[in-house]
Amino acid sequence: MSKSNFLEDFIVEQKITHAIPRTLTEGDSSIYISLTGNRHPLYCAQTFSNQLGFSKTPLNDFLVFHIAFGRTVQDISLNAVANLGYADVRFIKPVYAGDTIRSESKVIGIKENSNKISGIVYVHSITKNQDDDEVLSWKRWVMIPKNNKDAVIKESVMEELPKTVSIDNIQIPKDLNVSNFDFSATGSSRVWDDFNDNEFINHSRGLTIDETAHTLATHLYQNNAKLHFDAHMMKGTAFGQRLIYGGHIISLCHSISFEGLENALNIVAINGGVHSNPTLAGDTIYAKTIVIGKDKIDGRDDIGLLRLRLIGIKNLPSSSLDSIYQENTNDKIYNPNVVLDLDYSVIMPRGK
Amino acid sequence: MSKSNFLEDFIVEQKITHAIPRTLTEGDSSIYISLTGNRHPLYCAQTFSNQLGFSKTPLNDFLVFHIAFGRTVQDISLNAVANLGYADVRFIKPVYAGDTIRSESKVIGIKENSNKISGIVYVHSITKNQDDDEVLSWKRWVMIPKNNKDAVIKESVMEELPKTVSIDNIQIPKDLNVSNFDFSATGSSRVWDDFNDNEFINHSRGLTIDETAHTLATHLYQNNAKLHFDAHMMKGTAFGQRLIYGGHIISLCHSISFEGLENALNIVAINGGVHSNPTLAGDTIYAKTIVIGKDKIDGRDDIGLLRLRLIGIKNLPSSSLDSIYQENTNDKIYNPNVVLDLDYSVIMPRGK
Amino acid sequence: MSKSNFLEDFIVEQKITHAIPRTLTEGDSSIYISLTGNRHPLYCAQTFSNQLGFSKTPLNDFLVFHIAFGRTVQDISLNAVANLGYADVRFIKPVYAGDTIRSESKVIGIKENSNKISGIVYVHSITKNQDDDEVLSWKRWVMIPKNNKDAVIKESVMEELPKTVSIDNIQIPKDLNVSNFDFSATGSSRVWDDFNDNEFINHSRGLTIDETAHTLATHLYQNNAKLHFDAHMMKGTAFGQRLIYGGHIISLCHSISFEGLENALNIVAINGGVHSNPTLAGDTIYAKTIVIGKDKIDGRDDIGLLRLRLIGIKNLPSSSLDSIYQENTNDKIYNPNVVLDLDYSVIMPRGK
Repeated sequence: MSKSNFLEDFIVEQKITHAIPRTLTEGDSSIYISLTGNRHPLYCAQTFSNQLGFSKTPLNDFLVFHIAFGRTVQDISLNAVANLGYADVRFIKPVYAGDTIRSESKVIGIKENSNKISGIVYVHSITKNQDDDEVLSWKRWVMIPKNNKDAVIKESVMEELPKTVSIDNIQIPKDLNVSNFDFSATGSSRVWDDFNDNEFINHSRGLTIDETAHTLATHLYQNNAKLHFDAHMMKGTAFGQRLIYGGHIISLCHSISFEGLENALNIVAINGGVHSNPTLAGDTIYAKTIVIGKDKIDGRDDIGLLRLRLIGIKNLPSSSLDSIYQENTNDKIYNPNVVLDLDYSVIMPRGK
Repeated sequence: MSKSNFLEDFIVEQKITHAIPRTLTEGDSSIYISLTGNRHPLYCAQTFSNQLGFSKTPLNDFLVFHIAFGRTVQDISLNAVANLGYADVRFIKPVYAGDTIRSESKVIGIKENSNKISGIVYVHSITKNQDDDEVLSWKRWVMIPKNNKDAVIKESVMEELPKTVSIDNIQIPKDLNVSNFDFSATGSSRVWDDFNDNEFINHSRGLTIDETAHTLATHLYQNNAKLHFDAHMMKGTAFGQRLIYGGHIISLCHSISFEGLENALNIVAINGGVHSNPTLAGDTIYAKTIVIGKDKIDGRDDIGLLRLRLIGIKNLPSSSLDSIYQENTNDKIYNPNVVLDLDYSVIMPRGK
Repeated sequence: MSKSNFLEDFIVEQKITHAIPRTLTEGDSSIYISLTGNRHPLYCAQTFSNQLGFSKTPLNDFLVFHIAFGRTVQDISLNAVANLGYADVRFIKPVYAGDTIRSESKVIGIKENSNKISGIVYVHSITKNQDDDEVLSWKRWVMIPKNNKDAVIKESVMEELPKTVSIDNIQIPKDLNVSNFDFSATGSSRVWDDFNDNEFINHSRGLTIDETAHTLATHLYQNNAKLHFDAHMMKGTAFGQRLIYGGHIISLCHSISFEGLENALNIVAINGGVHSNPTLAGDTIYAKTIVIGKDKIDGRDDIGLLRLRLIGIKNLPSSSLDSIYQENTNDKIYNPNVVLDLDYSVIMPRGK
């Protein structure tokens, strides 16, 4: 029987093949648009993706990420108390309708908490397509309780995770060609060269989340973590209701961020990410982007990389957020309205 | 950056190419059925559409209309106070899964309101497919506020919009052939010849709208008008909650109207339409159809056109609606339960 | 006009061709996953289904059943007071994306209730694909009111319906080949030989149902029974709100039952089934499976049949359900938390 693991069940260097390969389809892409309001033409317009050199329309990178991630939940995080963070997430190859993906993981670190009732497990997961090509690689860490309080945990200290995906590890889709880029399809002529370091973009859309919308999304990803679906169980918790899958918040914020970043193309990396506060049905999500880096790409003067910090905010328009962190604190404690702090990199065409 | 326009930003004769081409898929069609309960076999049964001469199953005409319309929102109506009406809507060519559509508009009239804080903008929009064939053409007018109260508006009086799409401008899909029409697939043998002018049809279904259902629909169309999605913002308005996109009401009423009009085929025109009252989550939608015209088609004795007035009603079964307009008023003020008054034309097979 | 039938409208031996053939698509499959969280790889992974000998991925058997059933509602059960049960449901042939199905029924029994205001109608329905191959066959009985209280009902006593689909009537999909079965794709190595008669499996997932989720599902099936959709009408009933389509409960319970039955393949029969109590939005569904039979298949030592009793439970985790029936009753009256009692048969690979 498929089992879910507690802290004492993980062993460093252990490899786990996750069940349930999944064929992605155009239907998944349509539902994703329905759930997020995504408007990036790269993911929804065959004419546009063809002009960029792709023979088929790439699936939304975050849709692929969430489905890839969904495979790992049963073995890694079904019992998790919290999803603590992501690092070194690499989008290696676009995934298209008709591709079948499967995920596997390796445990790369275990650290027991001082309370001795839980600990942190670090895993490195990869996702391959039906041709055995790696399409995604990522690291995440989760807090997992012990099942047996007396179990002795064999800890394994790890090297620190990289703060960014290094440029050497970034893959530009091999077909990508922006020589015929159609700026009328994106609605903006603002390109890589026009963005400035530390520039803020207050995206104006707000998207309110209802119970059905987030459960449909999380089901679509076949993510079976119980706390997203079981209101009866959640009534007995401090939250009192179902918690929203953090990945749904990423997708909403990314969709909201189209306004102001219309020419953003494929996502190539998530350098790091934190779900800084929980979200519940009824919350309205807003987003802000801060440009935190601009990288040129060797041998390509037609495209560049923007490193973006995407801040998700609940129940407060982006333009009204004074500070990402609480003031008057020495530690960087997030403002209670900030629900997402995601550092990612996208390709954008450069000016002529 | 994509911008949204205020009254003073529009110029008569100005042409606007809308962003975000969209490839429609079978997935969109399935979601549309899930959201509306649509049962017209023309749009869901390959066997039926093949018998009618179509090599593929046409997408629901209203699904296509809403997606085409969705393209125009950012430029035309993101700041709109109200969507006042439609006229001269022509369905020129069926759209199939795999087609990519894009929309463009021309400003055809501007009129400032006497209050000098807003005005009415009239636009003519067209939608083309990937082969540059026109598939849709329509006119609509919206009330748009000024951003700068002191801006001087250059008005442009227009010729009156046509009250109906003239028969010369109606396109019958070139493949349509009803010689093998399968009445067992529609469940009714009632054809064009059997309908009478001024006949009333009280459709009996009622469909209750929930927040998620209308937001999923409006997201599917990539319509990004904020008032449909942002409950936080809407709390501060007279409505107190998200407003439902009027197009969703059209789709619900059209789906409800299958009962009694089972042999209706492609929609060829919307002669005019008004969203007469707002709808909110929790409302139950009913519909009534009045046959307001029957037109023969030159050279075709196998099919005819029915001109139908589709009345959408909230929270009151169709059979209980006494009057479309409020009684004891000189002006035609809509009954507060009437939410839609749509005048459209469909093809229907004729009797032998 | 399509009509809906009252008790006096049914005639024994009458054949009814149901309207609205339906082409099933990958989009339907994606929405089904979104609505149910289904994780069976047979239905979502092209690689897995290919390894099993299928050239395409079979659509979820319950998705097919609900869509096939949806065709019959207008004629059989639009006026039904209750859906009393199913028997002799045979899954004859897998259905794939692109197939078009249509349903027809024969009335096989009519019995007036002693109150003379309603009665029970028994029908045998079959569903065929576009090649005229039978894909499904089932019997059900529903309670239907009379329209005219004085109508005289011509009763017709029937032979008792079979308590199980006999092994001779069970069809194994002709392409099915488990010689390359990939247990890493299901996440479990537990096979037919490992299950014991009368074994209980308490599935741990709980899925809370919201109004939109069940209406989307029921719309997807084009099931137009009013009590699932019309909250305005339902306010005036004892339920006070929309009733959830029983088929949605079957799908949720089946999806929940993946945990513990990961190697279950195609469903071949529903031997019987009862919706023992109603469900409403807000209910959380849990499920328990009892192994009630193990059958070998002539000429196949690689696969066997498991006969399973799937118990759906509301608002009570499976492990907390003491008894399926109320205690201290002579009759078998269901525990009020038990909402489904379904007896079905699935194929499962055998051990080496």
